[in-house]
Amino acid sequence: MRLHGFFRSAASYRVRIGLALKGLPFEQTSYVLRKGEQRGAAYLEKNPQGLVPALELDDGTVLTQSLAILEWLEETHPAPAILPKDPLARARVRAFALAISCDIHPVQNLGVLNEVRALGHDDPQVNGWAKRVNGDGLAACEKLIARGKGPFCFGDKPTMADICLVPQLGNARRFGCDLSAMPRLLEAEAACMALPAFSESVPERQPDAE
Amino acid sequence: MRLHGFFRSAASYRVRIGLALKGLPFEQTSYVLRKGEQRGAAYLEKNPQGLVPALELDDGTVLTQSLAILEWLEETHPAPAILPKDPLARARVRAFALAISCDIHPVQNLGVLNEVRALGHDDPQVNGWAKRVNGDGLAACEKLIARGKGPFCFGDKPTMADICLVPQLGNARRFGCDLSAMPRLLEAEAACMALPAFSESVPERQPDAE
Repeated sequence: MRLHGFFRSAASYRVRIGLALKGLPFEQTSYVLRKGEQRGAAYLEKNPQGLVPALELDDGTVLTQSLAILEWLEETHPAPAILPKDPLARARVRAFALAISCDIHPVQNLGVLNEVRALGHDDPQVNGWAKRVNGDGLAACEKLIARGKGPFCFGDKPTMADICLVPQLGNARRFGCDLSAMPRLLEAEAACMALPAFSESVPERQPDAE
Repeated sequence: MRLHGFFRSAASYRVRIGLALKGLPFEQTSYVLRKGEQRGAAYLEKNPQGLVPALELDDGTVLTQSLAILEWLEETHPAPAILPKDPLARARVRAFALAISCDIHPVQNLGVLNEVRALGHDDPQVNGWAKRVNGDGLAACEKLIARGKGPFCFGDKPTMADICLVPQLGNARRFGCDLSAMPRLLEAEAACMALPAFSESVPERQPDAE
């Protein structure tokens, strides 16, 4: 399998973790997002959205959207599971993953920040936007799991929730968010980082890291 | 079951369609988004994200995030299915649903548009933002299904993809998008609107419609 992505893309990072948790080897092709390489003609053939990540299977089939890829991984490589078995528990894990993937990540990604900049705003304003989106969004995520059992987001095993959380915390720090009031999120992150599937998937350890 | 939502919320609209397709009766509680009613203390107890929709079960359990609710509906009420059976086909349907739910909807929702306004931009600029996000995003969605068989997004039955598409097309029209270059999306919408589950779920037919 080949992951089309970028070391710093949080959505690519999610898929790296998912593949590593499932024990699946993969190669990587890198697209420098700030240069717009993900909108080149050859990649648009693979993913008309012009976004990373995409997962290309050995037969050339291309899967897009990180959460759809994670669900596909779970359905085709069930062990170890990244979703619980009970439908209600699955709904909670998915809701947490979506709270990050819908309500935080897309509103602070490079494309949107470039749009804010194009409206005439300077770097402090653009970074302020991203910091606010991450801070407010993660504060709500903390509440979603505050009363639940750790050390991971949902119990004693990593799930799709943790897979989305860890990359987003990286973004939040990059934008200067104070995470000290989010003890459950930090507990989950620490539990994840003790696992090679997470620690080997960090942006800094990817071949395209700058 | 009780759906906490708002007639004009595209994410609430998705859940209305899902419940109707599954033949499940539900009551509705409405939150006027522009008045911030979804951030009232009582609702924050149900959903700390302060967003609609939330689905409250008869035992008081609350589910959040429209796509997590739709997956839960599919797992607990499998017929009629809103996802295909084959993992790869499921991945394509989910990717389409996520292309709308992650990459279009959150970047043009009321909260983000208010942030753009707060940066000092007037209504034409704010609407221009929303129009661009819908237009560019839906153009990519058209490409995702352009070569596939209709009349629905993915074949001869409505799926989670159609459930996300129809509400988003409503938003796109509200912001003045020209949809004439998206024949497959319009074909899928027409097929959906011939079904009562879709036609009865439109915003204009909800009890809280203004």
